[in-house]
Amino acid sequence: MATEYSAHVESNDKQPRTARGLKTKRKLLDAAALEFGEKGFHEASITGITQRAGTALGSFYTYFDSKDELFSALVKDMSTRVKSHAAIAMTEWQDTLEREKLALEAFMNFAREHKEIYRIIDEAEFVDPDSYRAHYEATAKRIFERLQEGSEAGDLRGNLDEAHAWAIMGMNVFLGLRYGIWTEEKSTVEIAEIANEILATGIAAAKS
Amino acid sequence: MATEYSAHVESNDKQPRTARGLKTKRKLLDAAALEFGEKGFHEASITGITQRAGTALGSFYTYFDSKDELFSALVKDMSTRVKSHAAIAMTEWQDTLEREKLALEAFMNFAREHKEIYRIIDEAEFVDPDSYRAHYEATAKRIFERLQEGSEAGDLRGNLDEAHAWAIMGMNVFLGLRYGIWTEEKSTVEIAEIANEILATGIAAAKS
Repeated sequence: MATEYSAHVESNDKQPRTARGLKTKRKLLDAAALEFGEKGFHEASITGITQRAGTALGSFYTYFDSKDELFSALVKDMSTRVKSHAAIAMTEWQDTLEREKLALEAFMNFAREHKEIYRIIDEAEFVDPDSYRAHYEATAKRIFERLQEGSEAGDLRGNLDEAHAWAIMGMNVFLGLRYGIWTEEKSTVEIAEIANEILATGIAAAKS
Repeated sequence: MATEYSAHVESNDKQPRTARGLKTKRKLLDAAALEFGEKGFHEASITGITQRAGTALGSFYTYFDSKDELFSALVKDMSTRVKSHAAIAMTEWQDTLEREKLALEAFMNFAREHKEIYRIIDEAEFVDPDSYRAHYEATAKRIFERLQEGSEAGDLRGNLDEAHAWAIMGMNVFLGLRYGIWTEEKSTVEIAEIANEILATGIAAAKS
């Protein structure tokens, strides 16, 4: 796990050099997710975060210069974790559309387990606009690369545009909000199938 | 115009009773859109809003009790204006999918003309969560009603779910952000066509 986590930790000049250091930094990021998720950026405090993490105040400053810097690191960390979580889910797929279904299902499951993610990413629009934009641009780029692979493999049409990736990302984000965060009235499998059917055949009536 | 605007103004006990009053309230809402859009809720000030509106400070309190109340009224006003703008664009349509295309195109054009809308609606998640949720629930409900009409008319499949409406709304919101707010590198017609083709036939390769 330490190896996997280490990949999630943003590199800076305060990068931990030991397994114990990595673990402490990880604890601070997890505590920050809860603190920012519950209180929002402005109400959240560094002491609230170190108390949740069970670490000394000094260890915060070993790894971060400020609440702002921790927030930015957290947005990048969540962005990377969503990516990793989806990547793990996408290891076994038959065709490109099925891979997108697995990606959405994994994202929704992640959102249900980490409900604070929406509030944190969304608050980044105001607290750290560059990280907000970077998160969505990176996500759309990843989706577009998968679509291009799908076109090359003959699974998807050949004339797909970056806008198709943004459309898919938007579907995923709003389905995650509605059926991952606000209610869990439907299973993530069911929602992922609905979204996937749109991509597979659209919603028009069958031509007779 | 006064009649159209009057429909946009939220009713409360401070509802204007004259055409002049309606015009003043409209000026305050338009000024608030610019002030909140530029500075964000916390930095925005009532005096900044009345100065932009060219009205006396007293006229603010004739119509609103507080900055919070004005913000909530503004979110509802923008939600209603997006709806009206799309409704006007959707007057001439041949089939249900074309109607959705016109709705997205109208939304993107509105967003380009009122770039502050994203920041204001998105900030509502933190400043006024009920209005934020109400905006998206009402939008999704409207889309779902149109989809159901489309199924009844035989344009769309019959087994569409509320989740299809949320998927379409998510597509529209992210395409509007990327191609309406962040850049204008593609025309709104082109983007609306790309989204509509997804709904018409999906993105899979043609079966041979």
